[in-house]
Amino acid sequence: MATKTRIGLAGLAVMGQNLALNIAEKGFPISVYNRTTSKVDETVERAKKEGNLPVYGFHDPESFVQSIQKPRVVIMLVKAGAPVDQTIKTLSAYLEKGDCIIDGGNEWYENTERREKAMAELGLLYLGMGVSGGEEGARNGPSLMPGGSFEAYKYIEDILLKVAAQVPNSGPCVTYVGKGGSGNFVKMIHNGIEYGDMQLIAEAYDVLKSVGKLSNEELQSVFAEWNRGELLSFLIEITADIFGIKDDKGDGHLVDKVLDKTGMKGTGKWTVQQAAELSVAAPTIEASLDARFLSGLKEERVEAAKVFKSGGFGDVLSDQPVDKQKLIDDVRKALYAAKICSYAQGMNLIPIFLDRIKKAYDRNANLANLLVDPEFAKEIIDRQSAWRRVVCLAINSGISTPGMSASLAYFDSYRRERLPANLVQAQRDYFGAHTYERTDMEGSFHTEWFKLAKQSRS
Amino acid sequence: MATKTRIGLAGLAVMGQNLALNIAEKGFPISVYNRTTSKVDETVERAKKEGNLPVYGFHDPESFVQSIQKPRVVIMLVKAGAPVDQTIKTLSAYLEKGDCIIDGGNEWYENTERREKAMAELGLLYLGMGVSGGEEGARNGPSLMPGGSFEAYKYIEDILLKVAAQVPNSGPCVTYVGKGGSGNFVKMIHNGIEYGDMQLIAEAYDVLKSVGKLSNEELQSVFAEWNRGELLSFLIEITADIFGIKDDKGDGHLVDKVLDKTGMKGTGKWTVQQAAELSVAAPTIEASLDARFLSGLKEERVEAAKVFKSGGFGDVLSDQPVDKQKLIDDVRKALYAAKICSYAQGMNLIPIFLDRIKKAYDRNANLANLLVDPEFAKEIIDRQSAWRRVVCLAINSGISTPGMSASLAYFDSYRRERLPANLVQAQRDYFGAHTYERTDMEGSFHTEWFKLAKQSRS
Repeated sequence: MATKTRIGLAGLAVMGQNLALNIAEKGFPISVYNRTTSKVDETVERAKKEGNLPVYGFHDPESFVQSIQKPRVVIMLVKAGAPVDQTIKTLSAYLEKGDCIIDGGNEWYENTERREKAMAELGLLYLGMGVSGGEEGARNGPSLMPGGSFEAYKYIEDILLKVAAQVPNSGPCVTYVGKGGSGNFVKMIHNGIEYGDMQLIAEAYDVLKSVGKLSNEELQSVFAEWNRGELLSFLIEITADIFGIKDDKGDGHLVDKVLDKTGMKGTGKWTVQQAAELSVAAPTIEASLDARFLSGLKEERVEAAKVFKSGGFGDVLSDQPVDKQKLIDDVRKALYAAKICSYAQGMNLIPIFLDRIKKAYDRNANLANLLVDPEFAKEIIDRQSAWRRVVCLAINSGISTPGMSASLAYFDSYRRERLPANLVQAQRDYFGAHTYERTDMEGSFHTEWFKLAKQSRS
Repeated sequence: MATKTRIGLAGLAVMGQNLALNIAEKGFPISVYNRTTSKVDETVERAKKEGNLPVYGFHDPESFVQSIQKPRVVIMLVKAGAPVDQTIKTLSAYLEKGDCIIDGGNEWYENTERREKAMAELGLLYLGMGVSGGEEGARNGPSLMPGGSFEAYKYIEDILLKVAAQVPNSGPCVTYVGKGGSGNFVKMIHNGIEYGDMQLIAEAYDVLKSVGKLSNEELQSVFAEWNRGELLSFLIEITADIFGIKDDKGDGHLVDKVLDKTGMKGTGKWTVQQAAELSVAAPTIEASLDARFLSGLKEERVEAAKVFKSGGFGDVLSDQPVDKQKLIDDVRKALYAAKICSYAQGMNLIPIFLDRIKKAYDRNANLANLLVDPEFAKEIIDRQSAWRRVVCLAINSGISTPGMSASLAYFDSYRRERLPANLVQAQRDYFGAHTYERTDMEGSFHTEWFKLAKQSRS
């Protein structure tokens, strides 16, 4: 290799390998490095097989860094936390002023900001870039959320524009998010919204299966049908796929053998904690996180089911006949309306993101909440009866739809001119002299509720 | 004053004044100090009026500290954060080895642990003590949650046992919680549970008022009646009182003039963040925090109400006649059942606390969740139909009961042997190769869902 490569990538687990191959395929020669060197050879081997792509492997960090043209850019795809610090330490020993490191992992945004500052002291630039779309996306077109040094972003913009997913009528799925850790922040919220989507889909599945008694074949065709309409999305598509997979270790469908325990990696938790920090209500995302926590208590749930079965509870409380097609329509509408609420919560945490929602904000940049955008408002109004029917059906069947009901309560609270919050504030003033405001005059008021109550009692 | 006092108290806002008077009234001579010295004189004046109580005021920190018998104990009741650090700095200049400082405020428990360590280096002891019950409680009997140095706790145990609320059949409302910041931690969870209680009561009020059309007079007598039964509690009592207070600035009842915006001070937020950190589902407490956030968006809600009114929404969707007495009974049962769920969440964050719940845990120290305690389980079973009716009635009326529905979804999730979490885990394995477990065999599995789906499609 005589000439230098355009860019480098360190960290060659599947995500890293796929992103490197994607970059090379778009015409940018790339150097790759991994601490465990077998991964380097594996990547080079794949590059050969997948079309003789210009991927150059290195077994030591120094020659890896030296192989990249200046100013050098290295994308890291290693685990968040300490491994990122370790990789930065390894690379920065050989990097020179003006070079740049990009963290493509799901990192806590404050860590990125800390590192950006530390790098700046060495004269190095830093970007934290959310990469969404999983392994499939990394290889064929991820959504990219770069944040940090704008100078560094401009230098690799041509690469990112080609590597990112290309969305019809919308262009490449990449935009410079902003300074500091904002790329990681947006990715975190994006993941929180995804937690919501997945939970709502799981609830739709639960209602259709437990109450509507749909078979896996029926579920597959319902979700495939939904994916041709308003619900069209990657998650609905893969859900349809999942219901079609047979178990290769036994009879029946694989989905029925999958243990009902959901794992998680931290971004959902961070979203919930951050929402609380910013005083933003995010009930659907919280419900989704809680659903994962509760799913983890499998043994406890098995015991609790026994306790309450003896109290007259079956797994499903009522066994009334339902109109299947009506139920399917209702659940589709409920899922869609609940999803809008979930996205509204996420967008209140960080605006300007997913394509369609971006357009709603383009219509009104000062939109207070996605729900009051005329288009979304109409969609909810059209679906609200079905939504209420599904949640009540689930409640009366004794199955929980925590995400759909949290979304509905969010909606009904948000669209309510007057909430019973006056009572809570009166209680706070009663026991803690926290004062209250009035509806009919300005100012801050305190009442001696206890004294007055004692007087009126006597 | 010739002899030394037994204890000192610094920070003489109402809480501090009241606690000092309470301590003095129980027979322990007390020194008091405040940076703004007028508060010192005010406290001494009150002590005279309220029965010549042995309260001794000091205008400077040195003579304040010198007036206390060794080993000296000083309770601080100042704002959490920087003011606590400032007060510690002021006092520790005069304290000697073996002396002790107690923080009686709502402090973040990690701050207490940091301070305890710093104090230990000076040879000083430290306690973080939650004080619950508001101003009224501080004066006449608070619930006390001391944590930190056990040595320091033993030294003032006699004072705390007399000063704390005396609960019939249960004794003084104080127990040494544990090391470090555990006293503050328990107080934080206690406040989180209180957020839940207040929100659930507000929802009960809302359903009774908006759907049942109860007047304030009727509400007062309903809550007063409820306070004689299973719901007996301080919050139900003050709620009844609140509905009885007339507006002294206009016509009608004061509660109707109180703006529906609820303030907050941080412990609810901390509870939610901590629950996420500890992977504990706390949906009712989260719903209560979110309800406060949404209450704060008054202007946005007024606008949203307009948007959705034009879509056919009134403030209350349906205006069907209801059986008032039946509704009142249903709401009472729903409130009680939802409350058990809320407490269960709090107790999963920190066991051993409120009186009755403590007994449930005494029956089974390894109780996985309050819900499966036989007594509580029966109480929920007895109320579940009413609970479901109330939540569905609220949903169909278009008013939100976020706390009650979150509690119900929590209950229905927890008592469910199998949740739809298998689908979420299958999705995660599909797009991120996160693997899954199976119901029928041990181990960790990964499936090439996409490949299989492609095969089965072709």
